[in-house]
Amino acid sequence: MTERVALIGSGNWGSAVAKIIGRNVRKFDHFDNKVKMWVFEEKVNGQNLTEIINTKHENVKYLPGIQLPSNIVACPDLLETCRDATMLVFVVPHQFVTSICKQLKGRIPANCKAISLIKGIDVNADGFRLITDMIQDSLGVPTCVLSGANIANEVAEEKFCETTIGYRNRADGELFREIFHTPTFRVNIVPDVVGVELCGALKNIVAIGGGLVDGLKLGDNTKAAIIRIGLYEMRKFSKMFYADVKDETFFESCGVADLITTCAGGRNRKVAEAHVTTGKSFDQLEQEMLNGQKLQGTSTAQDMYNILSKKGLCHEFPLMTTIYKICYEGLPPIRIVEDI
Amino acid sequence: MTERVALIGSGNWGSAVAKIIGRNVRKFDHFDNKVKMWVFEEKVNGQNLTEIINTKHENVKYLPGIQLPSNIVACPDLLETCRDATMLVFVVPHQFVTSICKQLKGRIPANCKAISLIKGIDVNADGFRLITDMIQDSLGVPTCVLSGANIANEVAEEKFCETTIGYRNRADGELFREIFHTPTFRVNIVPDVVGVELCGALKNIVAIGGGLVDGLKLGDNTKAAIIRIGLYEMRKFSKMFYADVKDETFFESCGVADLITTCAGGRNRKVAEAHVTTGKSFDQLEQEMLNGQKLQGTSTAQDMYNILSKKGLCHEFPLMTTIYKICYEGLPPIRIVEDI
Repeated sequence: MTERVALIGSGNWGSAVAKIIGRNVRKFDHFDNKVKMWVFEEKVNGQNLTEIINTKHENVKYLPGIQLPSNIVACPDLLETCRDATMLVFVVPHQFVTSICKQLKGRIPANCKAISLIKGIDVNADGFRLITDMIQDSLGVPTCVLSGANIANEVAEEKFCETTIGYRNRADGELFREIFHTPTFRVNIVPDVVGVELCGALKNIVAIGGGLVDGLKLGDNTKAAIIRIGLYEMRKFSKMFYADVKDETFFESCGVADLITTCAGGRNRKVAEAHVTTGKSFDQLEQEMLNGQKLQGTSTAQDMYNILSKKGLCHEFPLMTTIYKICYEGLPPIRIVEDI
Repeated sequence: MTERVALIGSGNWGSAVAKIIGRNVRKFDHFDNKVKMWVFEEKVNGQNLTEIINTKHENVKYLPGIQLPSNIVACPDLLETCRDATMLVFVVPHQFVTSICKQLKGRIPANCKAISLIKGIDVNADGFRLITDMIQDSLGVPTCVLSGANIANEVAEEKFCETTIGYRNRADGELFREIFHTPTFRVNIVPDVVGVELCGALKNIVAIGGGLVDGLKLGDNTKAAIIRIGLYEMRKFSKMFYADVKDETFFESCGVADLITTCAGGRNRKVAEAHVTTGKSFDQLEQEMLNGQKLQGTSTAQDMYNILSKKGLCHEFPLMTTIYKICYEGLPPIRIVEDI
C-alpha cells in the first residue's frame, strides 16, 4: 500500500524536517511523493505564508535560507492536510495538541500512524500525561516519538547528527525511520516511547542548571557533574513513573547527546547564566532576551516540582528541586552545588 | 587497626589529592595522621622539592598557589614512603608503574591495599593489561581505581565535582572513599574496577574526535553525537573484553561526565582542533603547543587500533578506527563524520 505523509506544523523544526521528509519519500516506491504540510496561515510582507512556501519553496519566516523540496506542499487547512494521510508527523508547540486532535478526530484514515516531535509534558491536577498518549488516546492511532541532539538550523544545514525514534511496534518505528534517516541525520530506533519522550521533556530543566554553573564560573568539572546528575535524575524519574523505561535509551541521542547539546548552547542555558551574572529575575530576562520565545526550562521545573511535591518525592530529586527553588523561590544560585 | 596512607606520586593531580587526603585522615580515628608522599627529587631554584614542600607546604612546581595540609610529608625515598603503609595511592605516569612495583615487591605490609589514579593501559604483544592488574599481580594487594571528571586545578580550588571509585571488595571501596570524599569532591563507589579504569584510559581518544569537530566547525549537534558514539564504543570495547563490566558504570562521573569535561577542554581536544585549522601534524603540534607534555589521545588511539586490527574488530569500532587513521594515516578530518 502507498503511505501518505502529512506534516502538522511548519515552524523552525517542522521546516527542517520537511526538507528531509520531502527528499526521502522520493527514494521509496511505497510513499506518495506529495507531502502536505499544515501551515498556520499568516501574512509575511503582505503575502500568505503558504503561497510563499509553495512558490519560493522556502519558509522565509521560520527557516530562511533553506530550500525545501518542491513536493512539500503548504496547506492552510488542517483537515485538508490530513484527510488522506497514513503517517502524521506532529511538530507544533505542545499547547496546540489538544485542539488539533479534537479537530482531526474521526476525520483521518483508520490505518493512520503518528509520530510526535513535540517537547513537553501535559500537567494536570492528577499528575501528568505524555504527548504521545494524548495523540494516541484521542485519535486512536499508534504513536511514535522522535527526539535527539537536533538543533534545527544545524540539521537543515546537513551537519552530521543523530536522533532517536521510540516505537511501540517495530514496523512503525522502521517506517518512520525511512522518512527521517539520512547520512547526516542518523536515526536509531528503540522500543521505548516513554523514555525517549521524557528525555526531551526534562532536559531543559538540566539546561537551566548548566547555565547557572556557567554564570557562577565553576568550571568544566562542575558543569559535567550537573549534566551527569541531571541525566541520573531524568532516568530515575522516568523509571519511577513508568517501570518499563529502559536504561539503554539514556545512552541514545535523545538522552546523553541531547543533554550535552542543550547544556552547551540554547536559550535555557543562556538565560540561566544571565540570571547569575545580572541578578535579574527569569521573567524579566525572558522578556529582554528571548524576543517573544518562551523559556521552557523554568516552567518544566515548576511542573516537575508540582508532581514531586504532591507525591513527597522532592528529597529524591535534589537537583531538579533545587533548580525549581532557584527559579521560583529566590534561592541563591550557588545552592545548586550546596543542596544536592 | 590503624591505617597508614602513602601517596606514590606528587605531580599536579597527586598534589591536588594530597590536599584532600591530608585533611580527611584527620577526621577519623582509624587513620594515622601522617601521610607520606613520595616525590621524585628535583631541584627548584636550587632547593630540593621535598624540602620546599615540607617547609612551605606547597608544591611550587606542580600545583603552585595551593596550600597542602602540614601532615603531608614529602619523602624522596620510595621504600621509606611505603614501608609501613596499609593504603597505597598510585598517582604517577603509567610508564613508571612496572619499575615502582618491582622496587616495592615484598617490602610492604601484608595487609596492604592499593588504589590507582593512573590513566592508560599497558599494551604488549599479546594485547593489553590494566594498570590495576599490574599493581595487583606484582604486589599481591587488592587494587581499586579512582577516575572521574576531575581537572586537577579545579579540584584543588574546591570547585564542586564528582568522582568514581571502582572496587573489587566493598570494604576496600568504602575505606578509600573515606580518604577522598569531601562535600566538593563527591565519591561514588561502584563494584566495577575494569569499567572505571577503561573509561579513564579510552576517553582521550574521543577527545581527539571532539577537537576535530571543533576545528571543522560542525556545531553542537555533531559534537554531542561524537561524544555519544564515543561513549558507546568505549562501553562496547569494555564489555567485549571483560564480560562483567557494568552498563551502570558509564553513567557515573568516570563515564559520561569525564568524557564531557575532556571534550570541552583539555590538551587532546585543543591539539586536534589545531590539526584541522592549521593542517600541521599532531607530532608538530604536540611539540609547539604542549610545552613538553604528551598527547595521550593519539597514542591511546594507536594502542586501541593495534588491539582491534589484530583481532579483526576495526569495523565494529568505526569512530575509534577513523580517529586513529586521521592521526596516523593522513585521513582528512572530515572523514570523522563520513566514515562512521
